[in-house]
Amino acid sequence: MSLSLNQWTTKRWTVREAVDGCARHGLEAIGLWRQNVAEQGLEASAKLVRDAGLRVSSLCRGGFLTGDDALDDNRRAIDEAAALNASCLVMVVGGLPGVVPGEPLGRFSRDLPAARAKVAESLEVLAPYAAEAGVRLALEPLHPMYCADRAVLSTLRQANDLAEPFANVGVVVDTFHVWWDPEVLTEIARAKIFSYQVCDFLVPLPADVLLGRGMMGDGVIDFGPLTEAVGAAGYDGDVEVEIFNADVWARDPDEVVAEMITRYERLIAPTPAPRG
Amino acid sequence: MSLSLNQWTTKRWTVREAVDGCARHGLEAIGLWRQNVAEQGLEASAKLVRDAGLRVSSLCRGGFLTGDDALDDNRRAIDEAAALNASCLVMVVGGLPGVVPGEPLGRFSRDLPAARAKVAESLEVLAPYAAEAGVRLALEPLHPMYCADRAVLSTLRQANDLAEPFANVGVVVDTFHVWWDPEVLTEIARAKIFSYQVCDFLVPLPADVLLGRGMMGDGVIDFGPLTEAVGAAGYDGDVEVEIFNADVWARDPDEVVAEMITRYERLIAPTPAPRG
Repeated sequence: MSLSLNQWTTKRWTVREAVDGCARHGLEAIGLWRQNVAEQGLEASAKLVRDAGLRVSSLCRGGFLTGDDALDDNRRAIDEAAALNASCLVMVVGGLPGVVPGEPLGRFSRDLPAARAKVAESLEVLAPYAAEAGVRLALEPLHPMYCADRAVLSTLRQANDLAEPFANVGVVVDTFHVWWDPEVLTEIARAKIFSYQVCDFLVPLPADVLLGRGMMGDGVIDFGPLTEAVGAAGYDGDVEVEIFNADVWARDPDEVVAEMITRYERLIAPTPAPRG
Repeated sequence: MSLSLNQWTTKRWTVREAVDGCARHGLEAIGLWRQNVAEQGLEASAKLVRDAGLRVSSLCRGGFLTGDDALDDNRRAIDEAAALNASCLVMVVGGLPGVVPGEPLGRFSRDLPAARAKVAESLEVLAPYAAEAGVRLALEPLHPMYCADRAVLSTLRQANDLAEPFANVGVVVDTFHVWWDPEVLTEIARAKIFSYQVCDFLVPLPADVLLGRGMMGDGVIDFGPLTEAVGAAGYDGDVEVEIFNADVWARDPDEVVAEMITRYERLIAPTPAPRG
């Protein structure tokens, strides 16, 4: 495994600045976000990462499949992932139809099983399209506190079940979202892992729970067993650090990257190879 | 099923005031909290509910078993539940050892499996003690966002597995904590339900996520399928409304109880009897 910078950890950096930052700090991979890529330009972004010799460990993100008319935007996201030669397109599947993240409830549906069924139906359409484009879709189960507004996919077991029928659909294991799950180790063992993302779970959570992601070591997660299980499942790809955190975003991005490398080396990299 | 007031929904009321409130609004049951009972006096509280002809649908709460020296306090809680003739003692099992709810992290353990094992070990001691006292223990799985600081018991499946060996250990089904769970209906079907608690899950969550519990209808939960499943599992006891919410606590408690009754009649009571 090798460390990758998810560019939202250094949120104020453009794609160009983040690519330069990776090169400066000796990182070999970067996770990109669609809106940043759009600002830089798709072709320009592809050229930047290619010229820097970086792998694109993921493109964030497709998904939000539970509303209407999501398919066209997801086809565009797949095309962008192909153009960037991204290892996968991260899919955050969306919450209850009509619930808008961060906004008061308006008209929406409480039918959670229907929303989950809609995700499965959308995959039937998008998985073949992605396969045609040579793109892998990585379903990301989100922490259950985001079930209503961001992802009705709440457990790794659900994601594994959804991914199973499609060779090019797998999962994201994000420590923040799955650390609490009593079944996390057994579900990691059966997972097609397309992306491993790490950050810590802060306690107490900040006022905006979306920003409860912390630098590894600042929260409650025991990274050793999770990383070991991910390795034992056969994953040997990049490990993305993706931190949404107002304090981290306020700091000098170069300092953040330097600290990220130190923390990674202390808490993630030394995980022993699994025995047996 | 019949409606019960969990006294923290009307937090500023003493036991005496809450008992009077129940009588005034025609409720037949009340859920009590230990600290309020202590303020009123245990014997005085028992007499108040007895004289008012109220059932005590639960006593909140025992638990916090993951730290040291929890057993003595839990034995006292069991004795109090017996003295109050409570239908069950609610067990909030505690988070990672050393993590204090609402406080910055200090010295603590990240060993989640060990904390969960400690809960199971403690039950081996407490379940027989409770059986001797004629008290039922109701394990409450809490929403995974409280895993670190309040309850390492995060799913109904975990709670069901823990309860299985003991005739006098069952579970609390609290809509706020379990609504998101893809397995909630199948786990309700196999549960020994000792308490059914209802309130809504607010979106967006407030700054203090502990206070994200709302009046039924104000959040995202679809109560019909959950209540139907609880009934189909054989539960015909009291339905407690337990709301932690700064706005609700700021209102006139009599207004809150009146609204609670209206919402209960609209959203919980009309659930049709299961077919078949």
